[in-house]
Amino acid sequence: MNDIHEIRQVAVMRSAFKQKYGIPRQPRLVQGLKSEVVFGDEFNNPDAVRGLEEFSHIWLIWGFSDTKIDMTEEHPAWKPTVRPPRLGGDIRKGVFATRSPYRPNSLGISAVKLLEIRDDNGQLRLIVEGADLLDGTPIYDIKPYIPYSDIITEADEGFAKSIDNSIDVEFPDDLLAKVDEEFRAPLIRILELDPRDAYDRDSAKPCKMAFVNVDIEFVFRDGRLVVTAVNEL
Amino acid sequence: MNDIHEIRQVAVMRSAFKQKYGIPRQPRLVQGLKSEVVFGDEFNNPDAVRGLEEFSHIWLIWGFSDTKIDMTEEHPAWKPTVRPPRLGGDIRKGVFATRSPYRPNSLGISAVKLLEIRDDNGQLRLIVEGADLLDGTPIYDIKPYIPYSDIITEADEGFAKSIDNSIDVEFPDDLLAKVDEEFRAPLIRILELDPRDAYDRDSAKPCKMAFVNVDIEFVFRDGRLVVTAVNEL
Repeated sequence: MNDIHEIRQVAVMRSAFKQKYGIPRQPRLVQGLKSEVVFGDEFNNPDAVRGLEEFSHIWLIWGFSDTKIDMTEEHPAWKPTVRPPRLGGDIRKGVFATRSPYRPNSLGISAVKLLEIRDDNGQLRLIVEGADLLDGTPIYDIKPYIPYSDIITEADEGFAKSIDNSIDVEFPDDLLAKVDEEFRAPLIRILELDPRDAYDRDSAKPCKMAFVNVDIEFVFRDGRLVVTAVNEL
Repeated sequence: MNDIHEIRQVAVMRSAFKQKYGIPRQPRLVQGLKSEVVFGDEFNNPDAVRGLEEFSHIWLIWGFSDTKIDMTEEHPAWKPTVRPPRLGGDIRKGVFATRSPYRPNSLGISAVKLLEIRDDNGQLRLIVEGADLLDGTPIYDIKPYIPYSDIITEADEGFAKSIDNSIDVEFPDDLLAKVDEEFRAPLIRILELDPRDAYDRDSAKPCKMAFVNVDIEFVFRDGRLVVTAVNEL
């Protein structure tokens, strides 16, 4: 059997997340934020999604596009262990025991809500909610979410328990007004989820986050996240 | 962005299913049938699965190894529609609306139960239940099943409703005795699920199915499946 297999990009993700920083590490915590799966030329065919509208949710199989794995000999292509942010960044777990992007094949799977199948002048798009993927992420496959095979109600959570440690966010009105209206509530929610890496939590230095068409600057002060500037990208 | 991405096999599936014929099209209907994920040399490292024992279920990302897609120009590498066996084989649906193996990238995802992580003289294996994958299937990734991101209780079933149209099976004792004891109950269950393709259901010709180390022969007679021979492979 051949150990190497080639896969082709069938679509690309278009989302409000212009950089990895700020993307919630847990899916579906930010409600109402839509993104689009835009099919590539060869796959831009309405027949290929015929019947998909019967499903409320779909799986995306995608690639961690922002994860550059150093392939030089000094830095092997993969490491057996990673340090999950959820565990504070100090504890090492096996890469196959995590959803870390730094894995032998940088494949991700995400179950998302399918809001609409749109055909705009011949360009086919899936409008989805809950994807929380970086803009430009390559999509390799789309499959219907099938309750009888995908829902395992008795599954244990392991060390990946859902946590929702929201923090207070102070976002001055004049700065918030610079953000397109439809993105204001999702943006506040993303900030409430604390975009900082676990490693950075002790630092008082200002943070920057690109989102949609703006750069958000913020600092942490007395346990609150305070937005200090919003600049157009 | 590069449209082609290379993925590497990290492990191989070892299962009782020696040919595609007979594998239930719905996962987890056959209880008690174990299979093994055997890591390849480069990935045969206990550190890589450290912490995986905390999870009761895992995702396998794998390749449809028995699906030969004809890549000649007369037969393009993928077709936008397929005919799901579940719908009787007559109705066409978009390939992305199905879990068909005949898709642009022949990737499959399966949630399976993790029974045990075993290290036999340095060979690492995951003992799983519910995989129902062909022996020899390449495994590209293993991820923990995480309830808060993977369980979507409100998901619609679309046209992929679970069906369990069991049929009566007549398996003479002397023939059943030729099957290893641990595989008898799962084999009967597989036959009850009716291994025939929808296309073959009108045919009265005898069927053959390889399973573990035997070849099972059976016919359909008066709505029952009757096993007529069991021969060693």
